[in-house]
Amino acid sequence: MTTTILNKLNGVDVDQLVGTINAIKDNPEIARFNFRAHNEWVDGGHSRTEIQGFYGATSEDISRLEPFVLEGDEPPVLLGENHGPNAVEVILHALASCLAVGFIYNAAAQGITVECLEFDIEGELDLHGFLGLSEDVRPGYDNIEIKYRVKADAPREKLVELCNYVQKTSPVLDMLRNPLPVSVSLVD
Amino acid sequence: MTTTILNKLNGVDVDQLVGTINAIKDNPEIARFNFRAHNEWVDGGHSRTEIQGFYGATSEDISRLEPFVLEGDEPPVLLGENHGPNAVEVILHALASCLAVGFIYNAAAQGITVECLEFDIEGELDLHGFLGLSEDVRPGYDNIEIKYRVKADAPREKLVELCNYVQKTSPVLDMLRNPLPVSVSLVD
Repeated sequence: MTTTILNKLNGVDVDQLVGTINAIKDNPEIARFNFRAHNEWVDGGHSRTEIQGFYGATSEDISRLEPFVLEGDEPPVLLGENHGPNAVEVILHALASCLAVGFIYNAAAQGITVECLEFDIEGELDLHGFLGLSEDVRPGYDNIEIKYRVKADAPREKLVELCNYVQKTSPVLDMLRNPLPVSVSLVD
Repeated sequence: MTTTILNKLNGVDVDQLVGTINAIKDNPEIARFNFRAHNEWVDGGHSRTEIQGFYGATSEDISRLEPFVLEGDEPPVLLGENHGPNAVEVILHALASCLAVGFIYNAAAQGITVECLEFDIEGELDLHGFLGLSEDVRPGYDNIEIKYRVKADAPREKLVELCNYVQKTSPVLDMLRNPLPVSVSLVD
Protein backbone atom coordinates (compact mmCIF):
# COMPACT_ATOMS: atom_id res chain seq x y z
CA MET A 1 0.00 0.00 0.00
CA THR A 2 1.25 3.44 -0.90
CA THR A 3 0.12 6.42 1.11
CA THR A 4 0.64 9.88 -0.36
CA ILE A 5 0.36 12.80 1.99
CA LEU A 6 0.04 16.13 0.21
CA ASN A 7 2.21 18.73 1.88
CA LYS A 8 -0.17 21.68 1.48
CA LEU A 9 -0.04 25.02 3.26
CA ASN A 10 -2.37 27.94 2.46
CA GLY A 11 -3.68 25.75 -0.37
CA VAL A 12 -0.19 25.67 -1.90
CA ASP A 13 1.48 22.35 -2.68
CA VAL A 14 4.81 23.05 -0.97
CA ASP A 15 6.47 19.95 -2.44
CA GLN A 16 5.55 21.08 -5.95
CA LEU A 17 6.87 24.56 -5.14
CA VAL A 18 10.21 23.21 -3.92
CA GLY A 19 10.27 20.77 -6.83
CA THR A 20 9.76 23.60 -9.32
CA ILE A 21 12.55 25.65 -7.80
CA ASN A 22 14.94 22.70 -7.91
CA ALA A 23 13.94 21.84 -11.48
CA ILE A 24 14.72 25.43 -12.55
CA LYS A 25 18.10 25.28 -10.82
CA ASP A 26 18.87 22.18 -12.91
CA ASN A 27 17.42 23.60 -16.13
CA PRO A 28 17.00 27.39 -16.31
CA GLU A 29 14.99 27.00 -19.53
CA ILE A 30 12.03 25.81 -17.43
CA ALA A 31 11.69 29.36 -16.07
CA ARG A 32 10.96 30.94 -19.46
CA PHE A 33 7.30 31.85 -20.00
CA ASN A 34 5.41 33.56 -22.80
CA PHE A 35 1.92 34.83 -21.93
CA ARG A 36 -0.61 36.06 -24.49
CA ALA A 37 -3.93 37.79 -24.91
CA HIS A 38 -6.18 38.60 -27.85
CA ASN A 39 -8.44 41.64 -27.67
CA GLU A 40 -11.23 42.66 -30.01
CA TRP A 41 -13.06 45.96 -29.94
CA VAL A 42 -16.84 45.59 -29.59
CA ASP A 43 -18.38 49.10 -29.61
CA GLY A 44 -17.60 52.47 -28.05
CA GLY A 45 -15.35 51.93 -25.03
CA HIS A 46 -16.20 48.23 -24.92
CA SER A 47 -13.64 45.60 -25.91
CA ARG A 48 -13.23 41.93 -25.05
CA THR A 49 -10.06 39.98 -24.26
CA GLU A 50 -9.55 36.23 -24.52
CA ILE A 51 -6.74 34.58 -22.58
CA GLN A 52 -6.02 30.87 -22.86
CA GLY A 53 -2.74 29.33 -23.99
CA PHE A 54 0.78 30.20 -22.94
CA TYR A 55 4.25 28.73 -23.22
CA GLY A 56 6.11 27.79 -20.06
CA ALA A 57 8.14 25.05 -18.37
CA THR A 58 9.44 24.05 -21.83
CA SER A 59 6.05 23.37 -23.40
CA GLU A 60 2.76 24.84 -24.56
CA ASP A 61 0.17 24.78 -21.75
CA ILE A 62 -3.06 22.94 -22.48
CA SER A 63 -4.65 23.05 -19.03
CA ARG A 64 -7.36 25.53 -20.01
CA LEU A 65 -10.12 23.96 -22.03
CA GLU A 66 -11.87 27.31 -22.58
CA PRO A 67 -10.43 30.82 -22.75
CA PHE A 68 -10.97 33.30 -19.94
CA VAL A 69 -13.07 36.15 -21.32
CA LEU A 70 -12.54 39.61 -19.84
CA GLU A 71 -14.72 42.58 -20.69
CA GLY A 72 -13.28 46.08 -20.71
CA ASP A 73 -15.36 49.25 -20.85
CA GLU A 74 -15.74 52.70 -19.35
CA PRO A 75 -18.46 54.01 -17.02
CA PRO A 76 -21.00 56.50 -18.50
CA VAL A 77 -19.11 59.52 -17.12
CA LEU A 78 -16.22 58.36 -19.33
CA LEU A 79 -18.51 57.70 -22.32
CA GLY A 80 -18.92 53.96 -21.82
CA GLU A 81 -21.67 51.59 -20.74
CA ASN A 82 -20.13 49.67 -17.82
CA HIS A 83 -19.76 46.35 -19.66
CA GLY A 84 -16.65 45.80 -17.53
CA PRO A 85 -14.13 47.66 -15.38
CA ASN A 86 -11.91 50.10 -17.21
CA ALA A 87 -8.25 49.50 -18.01
CA VAL A 88 -6.80 51.45 -15.09
CA GLU A 89 -9.12 49.68 -12.64
CA VAL A 90 -7.93 46.35 -14.08
CA ILE A 91 -4.36 47.42 -13.26
CA LEU A 92 -5.38 47.59 -9.59
CA HIS A 93 -6.77 44.05 -9.81
CA ALA A 94 -3.60 42.77 -11.49
CA LEU A 95 -1.44 44.35 -8.82
CA ALA A 96 -3.49 43.08 -5.88
CA SER A 97 -3.77 39.53 -7.24
CA CYS A 98 -0.03 39.49 -7.94
CA LEU A 99 0.80 40.52 -4.38
CA ALA A 100 -1.70 37.95 -3.05
CA VAL A 101 -0.02 35.09 -4.94
CA GLY A 102 3.45 36.28 -3.93
CA PHE A 103 2.50 36.61 -0.29
CA ILE A 104 0.72 33.26 -0.06
CA TYR A 105 3.37 31.26 -1.94
CA ASN A 106 6.24 32.75 0.05
CA ALA A 107 4.36 32.32 3.32
CA ALA A 108 3.84 28.65 2.44
CA ALA A 109 7.53 28.25 1.61
CA GLN A 110 8.41 29.71 5.03
CA GLY A 111 5.90 27.57 6.90
CA ILE A 112 3.59 30.47 7.77
CA THR A 113 -0.12 29.66 7.85
CA VAL A 114 -2.23 32.54 6.54
CA GLU A 115 -5.80 32.83 7.83
CA CYS A 116 -6.85 35.84 5.79
CA LEU A 117 -5.26 38.37 3.48
CA GLU A 118 -6.89 41.34 1.79
CA PHE A 119 -5.90 44.46 -0.10
CA ASP A 120 -7.45 47.87 -0.53
CA ILE A 121 -5.87 49.63 -3.42
CA GLU A 122 -6.44 52.96 -5.11
CA GLY A 123 -4.94 55.17 -7.75
CA GLU A 124 -5.16 58.89 -8.50
CA LEU A 125 -5.49 59.91 -12.12
CA ASP A 126 -5.82 63.27 -13.85
CA LEU A 127 -7.62 63.07 -17.21
CA HIS A 128 -5.65 65.99 -18.68
CA GLY A 129 -3.03 63.48 -19.82
CA PHE A 130 -5.35 60.98 -21.52
CA LEU A 131 -7.31 63.78 -23.21
CA GLY A 132 -4.14 65.42 -24.49
CA LEU A 133 -4.97 68.66 -22.68
CA SER A 134 -1.61 68.95 -20.95
CA GLU A 135 1.91 67.74 -21.70
CA ASP A 136 2.80 68.15 -18.03
CA VAL A 137 0.27 65.63 -16.73
CA ARG A 138 1.06 61.95 -17.17
CA PRO A 139 -1.76 59.84 -18.67
CA GLY A 140 -1.53 57.14 -15.99
CA TYR A 141 -1.92 57.21 -12.23
CA ASP A 142 0.14 59.76 -10.33
CA ASN A 143 0.54 57.10 -7.69
CA ILE A 144 -0.98 53.89 -6.37
CA GLU A 145 -1.57 53.26 -2.67
CA ILE A 146 -2.02 49.76 -1.30
CA LYS A 147 -3.15 48.88 2.19
CA TYR A 148 -3.17 45.25 3.19
CA ARG A 149 -4.44 43.33 6.16
CA VAL A 150 -3.20 39.89 7.07
CA LYS A 151 -3.93 37.36 9.80
CA ALA A 152 -1.27 34.68 10.09
CA ASP A 153 0.63 32.64 12.64
CA ALA A 154 3.71 34.86 12.57
CA PRO A 155 4.73 38.03 14.44
CA ARG A 156 4.04 41.35 12.74
CA GLU A 157 7.77 41.91 12.21
CA LYS A 158 7.96 38.70 10.21
CA LEU A 159 4.92 39.67 8.12
CA VAL A 160 6.38 43.08 7.30
CA GLU A 161 9.63 41.38 6.27
CA LEU A 162 7.64 38.97 4.08
CA CYS A 163 5.72 41.87 2.55
CA ASN A 164 9.00 43.62 1.70
CA TYR A 165 10.34 40.47 0.06
CA VAL A 166 7.10 40.05 -1.92
CA GLN A 167 7.41 43.64 -3.16
CA LYS A 168 10.93 42.93 -4.44
CA THR A 169 9.80 39.86 -6.39
CA SER A 170 6.30 40.83 -7.58
CA PRO A 171 6.13 40.78 -11.40
CA VAL A 172 3.32 43.36 -11.62
CA LEU A 173 4.82 45.70 -9.03
CA ASP A 174 8.14 45.52 -10.90
CA MET A 175 6.43 46.42 -14.18
CA LEU A 176 4.75 49.44 -12.60
CA ARG A 177 7.65 50.75 -10.54
CA ASN A 178 10.26 50.23 -13.25
CA PRO A 179 10.29 51.03 -16.98
CA LEU A 180 9.22 48.22 -19.30
CA PRO A 181 9.89 48.14 -23.04
CA VAL A 182 6.62 47.84 -24.97
CA SER A 183 6.62 47.64 -28.78
CA VAL A 184 3.51 48.45 -30.79
CA SER A 185 3.15 47.70 -34.48
CA LEU A 186 0.37 47.90 -37.03
CA VAL A 187 0.01 44.66 -38.97
CA ASP A 188 -1.46 44.82 -42.47
CA MET B 1 -41.59 68.94 -30.98
CA THR B 2 -37.96 68.52 -30.06
CA THR B 3 -35.79 66.20 -32.09
CA THR B 4 -32.47 65.09 -30.63
CA ILE B 5 -29.95 63.56 -32.99
CA LEU B 6 -27.17 61.73 -31.19
CA ASN B 7 -23.84 62.46 -32.81
CA LYS B 8 -22.35 58.98 -32.41
CA LEU B 9 -19.29 57.59 -34.17
CA ASN B 10 -17.79 54.15 -33.35
CA GLY B 11 -20.38 53.97 -30.58
CA VAL B 12 -18.88 57.09 -28.99
CA ASP B 13 -21.07 60.10 -28.23
CA VAL B 14 -18.88 62.73 -29.85
CA ASP B 15 -20.88 65.63 -28.41
CA GLN B 16 -20.37 64.24 -24.89
CA LEU B 17 -16.65 63.81 -25.64
CA VAL B 18 -16.29 67.42 -26.81
CA GLY B 19 -18.48 68.57 -23.92
CA THR B 20 -16.27 66.77 -21.41
CA ILE B 21 -13.12 68.32 -22.85
CA ASN B 22 -14.65 71.81 -22.72
CA ALA B 23 -15.94 71.28 -19.18
CA ILE B 24 -12.41 70.28 -18.07
CA LYS B 25 -10.95 73.38 -19.72
CA ASP B 26 -13.38 75.47 -17.66
CA ASN B 27 -12.87 73.50 -14.44
CA PRO B 28 -9.69 71.37 -14.23
CA GLU B 29 -11.04 69.72 -11.06
CA ILE B 30 -13.43 67.65 -13.24
CA ALA B 31 -10.41 65.74 -14.55
CA ARG B 32 -9.41 64.31 -11.16
CA PHE B 33 -10.32 60.63 -10.69
CA ASN B 34 -9.72 58.14 -7.90
CA PHE B 35 -10.17 54.48 -8.83
CA ARG B 36 -10.31 51.63 -6.31
CA ALA B 37 -10.31 47.88 -5.93
CA HIS B 38 -10.69 45.49 -3.03
CA ASN B 39 -9.04 42.07 -3.22
CA GLU B 40 -9.47 39.09 -0.91
CA TRP B 41 -7.39 35.97 -1.00
CA VAL B 42 -9.46 32.77 -1.40
CA ASP B 43 -7.05 29.80 -1.39
CA GLY B 44 -3.67 28.94 -2.88
CA GLY B 45 -3.05 31.22 -5.87
CA HIS B 46 -6.73 32.18 -6.03
CA SER B 47 -7.90 35.66 -5.03
CA ARG B 48 -10.93 37.72 -5.92
CA THR B 49 -11.19 41.44 -6.67
CA GLU B 50 -14.28 43.62 -6.46
CA ILE B 51 -14.41 46.90 -8.35
CA GLN B 52 -17.38 49.24 -8.11
CA GLY B 53 -17.24 52.85 -6.94
CA PHE B 54 -14.83 55.59 -7.91
CA TYR B 55 -14.55 59.34 -7.57
CA GLY B 56 -14.44 61.45 -10.72
CA ALA B 57 -15.89 64.54 -12.39
CA THR B 58 -16.27 66.11 -8.91
CA SER B 59 -18.47 63.41 -7.42
CA GLU B 60 -18.71 59.79 -6.32
CA ASP B 61 -19.89 57.56 -9.18
CA ILE B 62 -23.04 55.55 -8.55
CA SER B 63 -23.60 54.11 -12.04
CA ARG B 64 -22.68 50.54 -11.07
CA LEU B 65 -25.40 48.78 -9.12
CA GLU B 66 -23.22 45.70 -8.57
CA PRO B 67 -19.45 45.36 -8.31
CA PHE B 68 -17.44 43.77 -11.10
CA VAL B 69 -15.91 40.58 -9.72
CA LEU B 70 -12.57 39.47 -11.15
CA GLU B 71 -10.95 36.16 -10.30
CA GLY B 72 -7.19 35.80 -10.22
CA ASP B 73 -5.34 32.49 -10.07
CA GLU B 74 -2.43 30.59 -11.54
CA PRO B 75 -2.46 27.60 -13.90
CA PRO B 76 -1.47 24.19 -12.46
CA VAL B 77 2.12 24.46 -13.76
CA LEU B 78 2.38 27.54 -11.50
CA LEU B 79 0.67 25.79 -8.58
CA GLY B 80 -2.83 27.13 -9.13
CA GLU B 81 -6.17 25.82 -10.30
CA ASN B 82 -7.10 28.12 -13.19
CA HIS B 83 -9.93 29.95 -11.40
CA GLY B 84 -8.93 32.98 -13.46
CA PRO B 85 -6.07 34.40 -15.54
CA ASN B 86 -2.92 35.22 -13.63
CA ALA B 87 -1.79 38.73 -12.77
CA VAL B 88 0.67 39.15 -15.63
CA GLU B 89 -1.93 37.95 -18.15
CA VAL B 90 -4.35 40.51 -16.72
CA ILE B 91 -1.75 43.20 -17.45
CA LEU B 92 -1.99 42.26 -21.14
CA HIS B 93 -5.79 42.65 -21.00
CA ALA B 94 -5.49 46.04 -19.26
CA LEU B 95 -3.03 47.26 -21.88
CA ALA B 96 -5.05 46.07 -24.87
CA SER B 97 -8.35 47.44 -23.56
CA CYS B 98 -6.68 50.77 -22.78
CA LEU B 99 -5.31 51.07 -26.32
CA ALA B 100 -8.72 50.06 -27.73
CA VAL B 101 -10.51 52.85 -25.83
CA GLY B 102 -7.84 55.39 -26.75
CA PHE B 103 -7.90 54.43 -30.41
CA ILE B 104 -11.70 54.41 -30.72
CA TYR B 105 -12.29 57.67 -28.81
CA ASN B 106 -9.60 59.54 -30.72
CA ALA B 107 -10.78 58.11 -34.04
CA ALA B 108 -14.29 59.33 -33.22
CA ALA B 109 -12.96 62.79 -32.32
CA GLN B 110 -11.19 62.92 -35.70
CA GLY B 111 -14.23 61.72 -37.65
CA ILE B 112 -12.69 58.34 -38.53
CA THR B 113 -15.13 55.43 -38.70
CA VAL B 114 -13.56 52.20 -37.40
CA GLU B 115 -14.92 48.93 -38.75
CA CYS B 116 -12.77 46.58 -36.70
CA LEU B 117 -9.85 46.79 -34.32
CA GLU B 118 -8.00 43.95 -32.65
CA PHE B 119 -4.82 43.37 -30.69
CA ASP B 120 -2.51 40.41 -30.25
CA ILE B 121 -0.28 40.96 -27.31
CA GLU B 122 2.38 38.90 -25.59
CA GLY B 123 4.98 39.18 -22.89
CA GLU B 124 8.16 37.26 -22.10
CA LEU B 125 8.84 36.44 -18.46
CA ASP B 126 11.63 34.59 -16.70
CA LEU B 127 10.56 33.03 -13.38
CA HIS B 128 14.02 33.42 -11.86
CA GLY B 129 12.97 36.89 -10.69
CA PHE B 130 9.66 35.94 -9.06
CA LEU B 131 11.20 32.90 -7.38
CA GLY B 132 14.09 34.95 -6.01
CA LEU B 133 16.63 32.73 -7.81
CA SER B 134 18.47 35.61 -9.46
CA GLU B 135 18.98 39.29 -8.65
CA ASP B 136 19.84 39.92 -12.31
CA VAL B 137 16.47 38.86 -13.68
CA ARG B 138 13.57 41.25 -13.25
CA PRO B 139 10.36 39.70 -11.85
CA GLY B 140 8.12 41.20 -14.55
CA TYR B 141 8.08 40.86 -18.32
CA ASP B 142 11.34 41.53 -20.16
CA ASN B 143 9.21 43.15 -22.83
CA ILE B 144 5.69 43.29 -24.20
CA GLU B 145 4.93 43.10 -27.91
CA ILE B 146 1.65 44.35 -29.35
CA LYS B 147 0.42 43.80 -32.87
CA TYR B 148 -2.78 45.46 -33.90
CA ARG B 149 -5.02 45.27 -36.93
CA VAL B 150 -7.49 47.95 -37.86
CA LYS B 151 -9.99 48.52 -40.64
CA ALA B 152 -11.15 52.12 -40.89
CA ASP B 153 -12.04 54.78 -43.46
CA ALA B 154 -8.65 56.47 -43.28
CA PRO B 155 -5.32 55.94 -45.10
CA ARG B 156 -2.73 53.78 -43.37
CA GLU B 157 -0.52 56.81 -42.76
CA LYS B 158 -3.31 58.45 -40.80
CA LEU B 159 -3.90 55.28 -38.75
CA VAL B 160 -0.21 54.99 -37.85
CA GLU B 161 -0.26 58.64 -36.77
CA LEU B 162 -3.35 57.97 -34.66
CA CYS B 163 -1.69 54.90 -33.12
CA ASN B 164 1.34 56.99 -32.19
CA TYR B 165 -0.85 59.61 -30.57
CA VAL B 166 -2.76 56.91 -28.65
CA GLN B 167 0.55 55.52 -27.37
CA LYS B 168 1.50 58.95 -26.03
CA THR B 169 -1.77 59.35 -24.13
CA SER B 170 -2.56 55.77 -23.00
CA PRO B 171 -2.76 55.59 -19.20
CA VAL B 172 -1.76 51.91 -19.00
CA LEU B 173 1.05 52.20 -21.53
CA ASP B 174 2.38 55.20 -19.60
CA MET B 175 2.32 53.22 -16.34
CA LEU B 176 4.26 50.35 -17.92
CA ARG B 177 6.80 52.36 -19.90
CA ASN B 178 7.50 54.88 -17.14
CA PRO B 179 8.14 54.49 -13.39
CA LEU B 180 5.10 54.82 -11.15
CA PRO B 181 5.26 55.40 -7.38
CA VAL B 182 3.46 52.60 -5.52
CA SER B 183 3.21 52.66 -1.73
CA VAL B 184 2.46 49.51 0.22
CA SER B 185 1.55 49.47 3.91
CA LEU B 186 0.40 46.89 6.39
CA VAL B 187 -2.70 48.02 8.28
CA ASP B 188 -3.30 46.63 11.74
